[in-house]
Amino acid sequence: MKERGILIVVSGFSGAGKGTIMKELLNRYDNYALSVSATTRNPREGEADGREYFFKTVPEFEKMIAKEELIEYARYVNNYYGTPRAYVEEKLSEGRDVILEIEIQGALKVKEKFPETVLLFVMPPSAKVLKERLIGRGTETEDVILSRMKRAGEEAEGMDRYDYLVINDELSACVEEVHQIIRSEHKKSFRNRELIEKIREELIELNR
Amino acid sequence: MKERGILIVVSGFSGAGKGTIMKELLNRYDNYALSVSATTRNPREGEADGREYFFKTVPEFEKMIAKEELIEYARYVNNYYGTPRAYVEEKLSEGRDVILEIEIQGALKVKEKFPETVLLFVMPPSAKVLKERLIGRGTETEDVILSRMKRAGEEAEGMDRYDYLVINDELSACVEEVHQIIRSEHKKSFRNRELIEKIREELIELNR
Repeated sequence: MKERGILIVVSGFSGAGKGTIMKELLNRYDNYALSVSATTRNPREGEADGREYFFKTVPEFEKMIAKEELIEYARYVNNYYGTPRAYVEEKLSEGRDVILEIEIQGALKVKEKFPETVLLFVMPPSAKVLKERLIGRGTETEDVILSRMKRAGEEAEGMDRYDYLVINDELSACVEEVHQIIRSEHKKSFRNRELIEKIREELIELNR
Repeated sequence: MKERGILIVVSGFSGAGKGTIMKELLNRYDNYALSVSATTRNPREGEADGREYFFKTVPEFEKMIAKEELIEYARYVNNYYGTPRAYVEEKLSEGRDVILEIEIQGALKVKEKFPETVLLFVMPPSAKVLKERLIGRGTETEDVILSRMKRAGEEAEGMDRYDYLVINDELSACVEEVHQIIRSEHKKSFRNRELIEKIREELIELNR
């Protein structure tokens, strides 16, 4: 029987580089799958249903809420965003470690429903580096940078609710670190109950 | 400031190879230190005080118990064995990850006193392999093998109280696995409270 995958929630300050880390993690290793969110916002050019998002109408989305088909959901700027349970369950039972990129409120809801979830927080080496990275992108106005930094300050309040903290100083090392954390999580005894049962039974058999 | 080390308790069936794994772990990496036990048994040829054991008289040992200078202790065949707290504390504050090789009763006592301890259980790929390894040593009588197997059956009852299970199939891979588990444990957010405080203060400062 294939070992069940682990659900991993990744959060982090905007500019900490979590998107890049996850992309590289999926490039390097084939045990991961990215969760695909459902949303009521309109598809943008080049986005495909079931790849970037599962695109839903508002009534469809609200029906998913009512039927508890979403692990978590939130509303931003008049649009719903949520994590369909079926997709995640499917990948986990295939033995894939499923990565969910959401912010803290969602992360804590997921952990409450599924206590075996691993919560991972990606942070920059320092607040100064974070600000420099946001400025360095060259695509954000000063207002946006200020609001991102303010948001980071709020998010930092919840950092200790995460299981692991990963510092994104050098991308490649950080990707390896995340991978090792997940590999190590697979060795937790509560994730290996069948293995424990198996050796117990074998020992009883041999000692009979 | 140097990051504090982690206390790691390693247990496992006799014949699972935990001694060899620990020896190889200390050979490969310099962040580990083996805890040195105190005992009232007599030193054997070639054993040095403070290296294999801290050799104590019974009154000395009982004074250590009374003064709570031992993390855990037990009595086997008229001799005391225990883990001196001072030595472990010294190594942990130097930033070393300290390995303690004790059996389950001791392991659970340590975890109770120091909840941040990592409990690691080393197991063979199967009970059959365990028996083969015990026979393969060629040094044990059939009676000893039977009693070790029986003891393994008892120990298996407590396996799920450990944090991690490691299968010792191939030594080198197993050593790496143990090392990665400890590296990952260092990323736990409860072990990085100072780092969290630091980035929170930096963000407050920059957002002022």
